Amino acid sequence: MSSQFGHAFRISTWGESHGGGVGVVIDGVPPRLPLTEADIQRDLDRRRPGQSDIVTPRDEADTARILSGVFEGRTLGTPIAINVTNQDARPEAYREMETAFRPSHADFTYQAKYGIRNWQGGGRASARETIGRVAAGAVAKKVLAELCPALEIVAYVKTIHELTAEVDPATVTLADVETNIVRCPDAAMAEKMIAFIKAIRAEGDSVGGIIECAIRGVPAGLGEPVFDKLEADLAKALMSLPATKGFEIGSGFAGARLRGSEHNDAFYMDAGRVRTATNRSGGIQGGISNGEPIFCRLAFKPTATIFQKQQTVTTTGEDTELQARGRHDPCVLPRAVPMVEAMAALVLVDHALRQRGQCGM
Amino acid sequence: MSSQFGHAFRISTWGESHGGGVGVVIDGVPPRLPLTEADIQRDLDRRRPGQSDIVTPRDEADTARILSGVFEGRTLGTPIAINVTNQDARPEAYREMETAFRPSHADFTYQAKYGIRNWQGGGRASARETIGRVAAGAVAKKVLAELCPALEIVAYVKTIHELTAEVDPATVTLADVETNIVRCPDAAMAEKMIAFIKAIRAEGDSVGGIIECAIRGVPAGLGEPVFDKLEADLAKALMSLPATKGFEIGSGFAGARLRGSEHNDAFYMDAGRVRTATNRSGGIQGGISNGEPIFCRLAFKPTATIFQKQQTVTTTGEDTELQARGRHDPCVLPRAVPMVEAMAALVLVDHALRQRGQCGM
Amino acid sequence: MSSQFGHAFRISTWGESHGGGVGVVIDGVPPRLPLTEADIQRDLDRRRPGQSDIVTPRDEADTARILSGVFEGRTLGTPIAINVTNQDARPEAYREMETAFRPSHADFTYQAKYGIRNWQGGGRASARETIGRVAAGAVAKKVLAELCPALEIVAYVKTIHELTAEVDPATVTLADVETNIVRCPDAAMAEKMIAFIKAIRAEGDSVGGIIECAIRGVPAGLGEPVFDKLEADLAKALMSLPATKGFEIGSGFAGARLRGSEHNDAFYMDAGRVRTATNRSGGIQGGISNGEPIFCRLAFKPTATIFQKQQTVTTTGEDTELQARGRHDPCVLPRAVPMVEAMAALVLVDHALRQRGQCGM
Amino acid sequence: MSSQFGHAFRISTWGESHGGGVGVVIDGVPPRLPLTEADIQRDLDRRRPGQSDIVTPRDEADTARILSGVFEGRTLGTPIAINVTNQDARPEAYREMETAFRPSHADFTYQAKYGIRNWQGGGRASARETIGRVAAGAVAKKVLAELCPALEIVAYVKTIHELTAEVDPATVTLADVETNIVRCPDAAMAEKMIAFIKAIRAEGDSVGGIIECAIRGVPAGLGEPVFDKLEADLAKALMSLPATKGFEIGSGFAGARLRGSEHNDAFYMDAGRVRTATNRSGGIQGGISNGEPIFCRLAFKPTATIFQKQQTVTTTGEDTELQARGRHDPCVLPRAVPMVEAMAALVLVDHALRQRGQCGM
Repeated sequence: MSSQFGHAFRISTWGESHGGGVGVVIDGVPPRLPLTEADIQRDLDRRRPGQSDIVTPRDEADTARILSGVFEGRTLGTPIAINVTNQDARPEAYREMETAFRPSHADFTYQAKYGIRNWQGGGRASARETIGRVAAGAVAKKVLAELCPALEIVAYVKTIHELTAEVDPATVTLADVETNIVRCPDAAMAEKMIAFIKAIRAEGDSVGGIIECAIRGVPAGLGEPVFDKLEADLAKALMSLPATKGFEIGSGFAGARLRGSEHNDAFYMDAGRVRTATNRSGGIQGGISNGEPIFCRLAFKPTATIFQKQQTVTTTGEDTELQARGRHDPCVLPRAVPMVEAMAALVLVDHALRQRGQCGM
Repeated sequence: MSSQFGHAFRISTWGESHGGGVGVVIDGVPPRLPLTEADIQRDLDRRRPGQSDIVTPRDEADTARILSGVFEGRTLGTPIAINVTNQDARPEAYREMETAFRPSHADFTYQAKYGIRNWQGGGRASARETIGRVAAGAVAKKVLAELCPALEIVAYVKTIHELTAEVDPATVTLADVETNIVRCPDAAMAEKMIAFIKAIRAEGDSVGGIIECAIRGVPAGLGEPVFDKLEADLAKALMSLPATKGFEIGSGFAGARLRGSEHNDAFYMDAGRVRTATNRSGGIQGGISNGEPIFCRLAFKPTATIFQKQQTVTTTGEDTELQARGRHDPCVLPRAVPMVEAMAALVLVDHALRQRGQCGM
Repeated sequence: MSSQFGHAFRISTWGESHGGGVGVVIDGVPPRLPLTEADIQRDLDRRRPGQSDIVTPRDEADTARILSGVFEGRTLGTPIAINVTNQDARPEAYREMETAFRPSHADFTYQAKYGIRNWQGGGRASARETIGRVAAGAVAKKVLAELCPALEIVAYVKTIHELTAEVDPATVTLADVETNIVRCPDAAMAEKMIAFIKAIRAEGDSVGGIIECAIRGVPAGLGEPVFDKLEADLAKALMSLPATKGFEIGSGFAGARLRGSEHNDAFYMDAGRVRTATNRSGGIQGGISNGEPIFCRLAFKPTATIFQKQQTVTTTGEDTELQARGRHDPCVLPRAVPMVEAMAALVLVDHALRQRGQCGM
Repeated sequence: MSSQFGHAFRISTWGESHGGGVGVVIDGVPPRLPLTEADIQRDLDRRRPGQSDIVTPRDEADTARILSGVFEGRTLGTPIAINVTNQDARPEAYREMETAFRPSHADFTYQAKYGIRNWQGGGRASARETIGRVAAGAVAKKVLAELCPALEIVAYVKTIHELTAEVDPATVTLADVETNIVRCPDAAMAEKMIAFIKAIRAEGDSVGGIIECAIRGVPAGLGEPVFDKLEADLAKALMSLPATKGFEIGSGFAGARLRGSEHNDAFYMDAGRVRTATNRSGGIQGGISNGEPIFCRLAFKPTATIFQKQQTVTTTGEDTELQARGRHDPCVLPRAVPMVEAMAALVLVDHALRQRGQCGM
């Protein structure tokens, strides 16, 4: 299936950049939970284009409509369908993509896979695809608020290019993240990042970076042995976001350079609760949460669409040059922060419901 | 499900370190393919304990028996069950784990999840669990040999601690990898790695590292848009291996520090075939293979079991000290190489069969 | 999952009787197939309310809109979302169902399961739920026309109450079925059925019956051993339709009264093709199609909603009486014919794609 | 997948009639439940060949071995693998099936599907396949005993050919069923059935019949709207058993001949509990259990293997005659009773765990 995620809390997303809209159907939602369109809109507003002057100027309100599964403000337990229409579509700006493949985009691979593609705005490979994820993630957060009330998910921009922020993942809050348009809670570094992104955009270029995600208040016991390890499902969820190139949990790649005697997290008792003195495990051991905070990092490449002339080939197999038009983010990270949160929430709610099903949490 | 992987080619593994054995049932295997126990044994021998003096001395032949799904040397299309018995089990060496949790192991989290655990040899969290993966991966390789005859998967040790090998992923072969016991195709560096692992073991300590995997000859068009992107499924597959802490594809974390104009892979025509001039994408664009080699890297932490006294807690909530006994790898990477290959093969065969189903490859 | 069906061709339906509409997302559709809204509307028109004077007068155009997955009249391979709005909703006609459970309806069981329900028009348990099935079935038929060009699915009303038609399942056509409003290809019996349904409706009562389905031109080899036998998947698909009470294939319950020597279907060669002299197997042996026509029958109970006073209980646990208002079918079978076809098509397309995936059909 | 069943409680069966044995892997079992090999053996003994003189004389002890997932007599929450070896295999008795297809067997369809088959004893299509189901069903019953302590599943032979028993499904017990070898709790009719089966066998012929299943003490709320209705999942589960031709629930096919005013089950209050005055619904409304007993019936055709000469064709496409040898049941129903119970248990445990996961039962 190209577009389904989750087992107990399963989402099915749909939609292309240009066309009838985008959306998601969510099956398996627990009944009787309060849910409104405003709950969903809050996160969609954080990912929508046009929200600041360092993101794409495409003008989309991205207004969510709940079409089913909610009655008198509460979930019914039946599928929740959420739709968002496309409003500011400009297919003509993509006309040259009809006949040439954009470098490092999905144009060529979709054509190779399906023998057909919607070249308008990237079709299904557009970042508009993530609207369904973010909407479903907002519902997941409402469910988690009930099932795991202590749980908090806070993602933020850690690095843009060579600029790396100082952030304490143990204490950073959503409010800290939302204080600036680049979504980096280190105010001084955020200013530098914003200036850098603007400069890069002025050059018609783009830039990548790293998002860090802290998940605190996770009950011990979520995650499955073997294949559906919690870190494996987080890796898949986050590496399924567009433009991602790497994933780390806990000590990550740096952990590969430590000895066991340096890396192991000693256990100790803290007011009757088992805790670890350090957290190189990143809150997960043997694929299962241990109650410590989960910390992970996600690397994003620079946006593929740049406003410079590039070598490429046509759909009929000739070498050519292409210079992009259209509206694009010079850096995807500010808008990717709510996507990271959404995917993390989808993984956690799925594991929480599976745990309740099998073990009666 | 704790122990299932794949959609079209679905494996179900089972088994604990100490008990009736370990194994796998594989469903969805195409019919009429040649398959023998020797095909499976070859890879099991590469992962088995006791194979060299830098791995655990636990003495297991790990002899695979095919119990079903094969008739007169050919697959039937019905489920293939493969069993391996546990022979050199020594539960008494784990007796103290009955009452204390090993640091950075899964003892505590299994207890937190299930309220019960098999403390003998780590139970289901033992690396013996990977026998089912490697056996299934061997079957997957046979299927791929038919479906994608040009496809080659070569994994190897790239880094042990601070020692990093020089390897050309475009040309390295399985034979190169198998020339030494650490499975690093850079002969000079391999010697240093072996000496280092022996020294670490003599100290009762352990060490981590990085495995790189090159997948060449992949047809363009494998992978799915959105959630089941090929890199997302590889990330999940590889991050589900024990002791992994990070995953990178193509440019990886370093790609986050490049500009779009530096990172994009220009397309060009090469004898009628669309190629890319560089391969920072790592062979995958928009979640779908583009026909270029897939390169990825996987970080492993140092083995959690060390022969030094460590702080921990008992199952009844008291602080205590624990010093491991038992038989353990000072470094998991040499034996993890065939596991990485197996997981990569399982991802690719699943996507190849799904592609044939939907698009008629 | 409450609302997903299929493996390779997977549909996710959503929607309640009164609310934002109903619809379906279809994932796994092969690319490049011609598909228009008219292809879908044709079958939706056959199931829509208000189509004749023996069905419910609820006035719904049930106009299908394709929101994604189709580009310039061809499928993209990405999810196809189809929406239908609810127009003639009259929640006030269901106000007494807010506080009392309708006998033999799903009001009580939804309340018992979820602790909440949308009482307007039966919510998710309304027959409007089947719009998503019929729309998806229309897409399935388009795929089958490509994959199995000889395949034909013809369902029809065989029995209404005590009135049973004479129909030859080997030759009956869709055109025969559509010659009258009860969808029974035996013209004389159809007239009696229509008169009987009108008489029953005049009494404020309802009536059940049997639909037969003939599936001809099925290639040999579809269906899976063991659990996903073709007849098992047909049984599930058809028994998931509202108001069904029984399913038979081939000889059915009558076959239980035969001896093996009377029941077995002898094989013989017919112009180079293996055929059976009789077809008590109903076209399926060992769960797999044998190339002969598949015949099955589905029993429907009388519509639960009748316009007579009935004993029931309130949501607060008191005995009470209830007399339904609202608009209802006195007999569900005429509108159920396209639902049966749709579910049969969904089963067959799923097995055809699975067969191509595993065995390379 | 040919051989997987269930979502939350998922089983993977494997094995052929002649070969390394048969078995099952069960994933998703709740932890800490008592489970022994004797729990499984009890039901395997009820399905094993050679148990009486009206079943096949093939001599198999069918001894179950639990290889994983159980520790010190309790479930671990990890996969439970159960193996049974084949002992009394006689491939030579099937030699003529290598070149000719048995009428109404799966020989031809397996060949058509896979292009290969294990002709020894029917391979995967042998009734030995059901050992995995019955073993898993025994585990399911242990889980249900914990989750739904009032739940009872009692299946029995209702009809053999024209002989139909009088049984009260509301009160019949397992002990009643086990009083005779035909598993019919009407003692007088059981004697006639046994005599009839012996007579039929003496003629080298075979006979079918009907099994009824009563499931009492089901909590209200199990089952899902739309596709995974409880009756739909029961229909699939039971119609996946070998030799089945029809399924009915509640009023069944007879319900198609009633009016709504005759068919509806009035609700009334009984000591604070919602009950129905009649039970034509068969304990399920809108796909969800209502707390009343579930009653269903399953039609079995006569065994395909008879000891009479039959017309058939060879694998190379010539008309021929075939007379079976080997060891076969003249009537499958006595041994099918525990299979029906097992499949019913697997459906119920899956829905109970799903309900707990989503709704927190």
